[in-house]
Amino acid sequence: MNQDTICAIATAQGGAIGSIRVSGPDAISITSRIFTPAKSGKTLTESKPYTLTFGRIYDGEEVIDEVLVSLFRAPHSYTGEDCTEITCHGSSYILQRVMQLLIHQGCRMAQPGEYTQRAFLNGKMDLSQAEAVADLIASSSVATHRLAMSQMRGGFSKELADLRNQLLHFTSLIELELDFSDHEELEFADRTELCQLADNIEAVISRLVHSFSVGNVIKNGVPVAIIGETNAGKSTLLNALLNEDKAIVSDIHGTTRDVIEDTVNMGGVTFRFIDTAGIRETNDTIESLGIERTFQKLEQAEIVLWMVDATDAASQINQLSKQILPRCEGKHLILVFNKADLVTDASSVVPAGFPDNVQSISLSAKRRTNIDELQQILISAANLPSVTQNDVIVTNVRHYEALTHALKAIKRVQEGLASNLSGDFVSQDIRECIFHLSDIAGEVTNDMVLQNIFEHFCIGK
Amino acid sequence: MNQDTICAIATAQGGAIGSIRVSGPDAISITSRIFTPAKSGKTLTESKPYTLTFGRIYDGEEVIDEVLVSLFRAPHSYTGEDCTEITCHGSSYILQRVMQLLIHQGCRMAQPGEYTQRAFLNGKMDLSQAEAVADLIASSSVATHRLAMSQMRGGFSKELADLRNQLLHFTSLIELELDFSDHEELEFADRTELCQLADNIEAVISRLVHSFSVGNVIKNGVPVAIIGETNAGKSTLLNALLNEDKAIVSDIHGTTRDVIEDTVNMGGVTFRFIDTAGIRETNDTIESLGIERTFQKLEQAEIVLWMVDATDAASQINQLSKQILPRCEGKHLILVFNKADLVTDASSVVPAGFPDNVQSISLSAKRRTNIDELQQILISAANLPSVTQNDVIVTNVRHYEALTHALKAIKRVQEGLASNLSGDFVSQDIRECIFHLSDIAGEVTNDMVLQNIFEHFCIGK
Repeated sequence: MNQDTICAIATAQGGAIGSIRVSGPDAISITSRIFTPAKSGKTLTESKPYTLTFGRIYDGEEVIDEVLVSLFRAPHSYTGEDCTEITCHGSSYILQRVMQLLIHQGCRMAQPGEYTQRAFLNGKMDLSQAEAVADLIASSSVATHRLAMSQMRGGFSKELADLRNQLLHFTSLIELELDFSDHEELEFADRTELCQLADNIEAVISRLVHSFSVGNVIKNGVPVAIIGETNAGKSTLLNALLNEDKAIVSDIHGTTRDVIEDTVNMGGVTFRFIDTAGIRETNDTIESLGIERTFQKLEQAEIVLWMVDATDAASQINQLSKQILPRCEGKHLILVFNKADLVTDASSVVPAGFPDNVQSISLSAKRRTNIDELQQILISAANLPSVTQNDVIVTNVRHYEALTHALKAIKRVQEGLASNLSGDFVSQDIRECIFHLSDIAGEVTNDMVLQNIFEHFCIGK
Repeated sequence: MNQDTICAIATAQGGAIGSIRVSGPDAISITSRIFTPAKSGKTLTESKPYTLTFGRIYDGEEVIDEVLVSLFRAPHSYTGEDCTEITCHGSSYILQRVMQLLIHQGCRMAQPGEYTQRAFLNGKMDLSQAEAVADLIASSSVATHRLAMSQMRGGFSKELADLRNQLLHFTSLIELELDFSDHEELEFADRTELCQLADNIEAVISRLVHSFSVGNVIKNGVPVAIIGETNAGKSTLLNALLNEDKAIVSDIHGTTRDVIEDTVNMGGVTFRFIDTAGIRETNDTIESLGIERTFQKLEQAEIVLWMVDATDAASQINQLSKQILPRCEGKHLILVFNKADLVTDASSVVPAGFPDNVQSISLSAKRRTNIDELQQILISAANLPSVTQNDVIVTNVRHYEALTHALKAIKRVQEGLASNLSGDFVSQDIRECIFHLSDIAGEVTNDMVLQNIFEHFCIGK
């Protein structure tokens, strides 16, 4: 249990109202020292939990603001500690003054994510649920919201906890056998049952590991690369796509991507546009450096928009198709004939020799014609399964890594059982699998990893 | 009383928590239709006022978020109506979903300032107090905060209400005389007392009208113009001043200034830097258009920083002093010798023939030397009286105009009494004075003016 009381501004700057959270053993007494209820005779320290009190924050004689104070008593609060929440007018000046008063009375500024960290440490939620809180705040589409909500409600970790407990049961039986190793014939743990359990666990973990590719795309967006010569209208098209729908997500908290890319939500699907350099022609030779970089970026893409200038389509396609086509295998390639308003004949046909699954569209990025149609093509190309709140999908890299390790361990268990390895080897692999499954719920997670998780939270959460 | 129930997001985008306010006769029943308390058996509609309830917002079967609902019952709420406040995770996606649900259940999106407007219409505060709410949210310094808080607590309007009531008493006595106009000798209203009251009111209104120049400076900042030739380092100095202190106010809500200027808080004083064009020399002739514009801007300034290149000081001063000096009369002129690091002799002396009160300072804007000293000179040049929460200072243009009209009317009353004008004329002027005093509290204010006041509020307040 933490001994210090923390405070933080929990709302963003610039709203009509602002909120300060105080949590810790002295939360209520510290708040009551700077707050005077409007109704005389009332005191905060005697107030019931889950009540609101109207009054004033004072700095000595000076009124700082008229506020509402929410009161929570341990363990019935977000952090599991005594908590207050001071709701005041949304002036950053007032919020700062109240923070100063709280700190002067003995509070400490909260670290990013420290409220959720305390909730985790006080057993209010497991680690994967705590991580879901950050995802929930960052959620920007129906799919990311559902995944985060499902994870926060614990659907995820419950399934793993159940598997882990079954493994624990078996490993203790096997280790019991080892204690009686003099009697070689003794088998407490039924090997057939253990084989079935291992197969079952392998199937579940496999499914979760594979769900990550979907989860990652839902969380970070479907990666789309727009390639083409510099004069093909790449950036004009990107602007048209970004402007058509105003829900631009420019920054995602809690993700570790180094480069911030343009992200846009279309039809409930988040698309992440990968920044590629235009392919420049110098004296009819294609600049090799530019194209090299672009082709490296292509690897990250699931969908490739190849922009071709409709007024010069045949030449551009001829020049680049040998380099582009082999690198788009397994990806969804869409030929975009831009500047379609400048040509009269319908040149928007996929050339002979192209794979069957290549689609094409004619549009004008500048005049914004047919942009809607391109969005429709992109949405169907994304081909995301619709997600419900009951789906168990891994979206977190840390969970993915733990599950990958657990999968390797359980596969070794399966192999060991198949080749009749001795109990102590099998037991070691089972223990390793248990360890990685426990890591997801935060039961064995070390302090450095914990710190790393919570420092990506926002302040006040 | 309003018949419709309004809702709005009251917090800015991007925080850890977000808050939605619902107000109106159906606020509680509408909220209860989308909210399920965590504790079974509890319902929102039966909850006591000033309580918090934890639970979930549902859209059909889908959980949107885990939230806290604050409950207020009329008339004990900010608006004087039934109110709820839904505190959820600070995801704009979640906030939008909750708003959609509320609107689907019969809420209407609130207009900017509509909560405060309802508070005013329901008699929770007078108009000048309501206006102070916007100022309080925009307050960015100790002085603006104190003024707004003093006004919100009603110190201002109480004094005016008292004077107005005394005037009302007298005018009714005078109008009683008019009913008995057959008896010319009859005087219900003691003229000596009325003269004293008029003098008293004239003194109070005069004081308030004059306080506006201080109030305006506190609210909008001390206007400072930086002038000088284009190469003198104007913008470098401005950047140095803005960066020295991070409390830059780039935008102030609720003010009606068209141009957003650079505002910086130094030593508790807000300075507003007026954007002036540099004076350009072309072929040794000073470009007339540029200097004309700059000189027009000079009129708005209270403090003028005349930047001179220390390596070329004598020439620059000679060239411009005849035009600048006459235009700085009554203003605080400070000669700033920039690039002082490039000269060895101390050239930072005010030239002969300059007014006595002109100060000077040598500095390097680029190397940021002596910037602190310039700040000190600016702070003492601003010469603002220190403001306490008990000071009555007019900061609002609307109040200033109403007071100016009231002052004219009360002066006519004084003149009328002095020249023994008949009671009906005096009464008419008293009525006009009363009207303008009542306008400040919003008692006679017409709907268009009200709309204009509240539409400058932020959404959710």
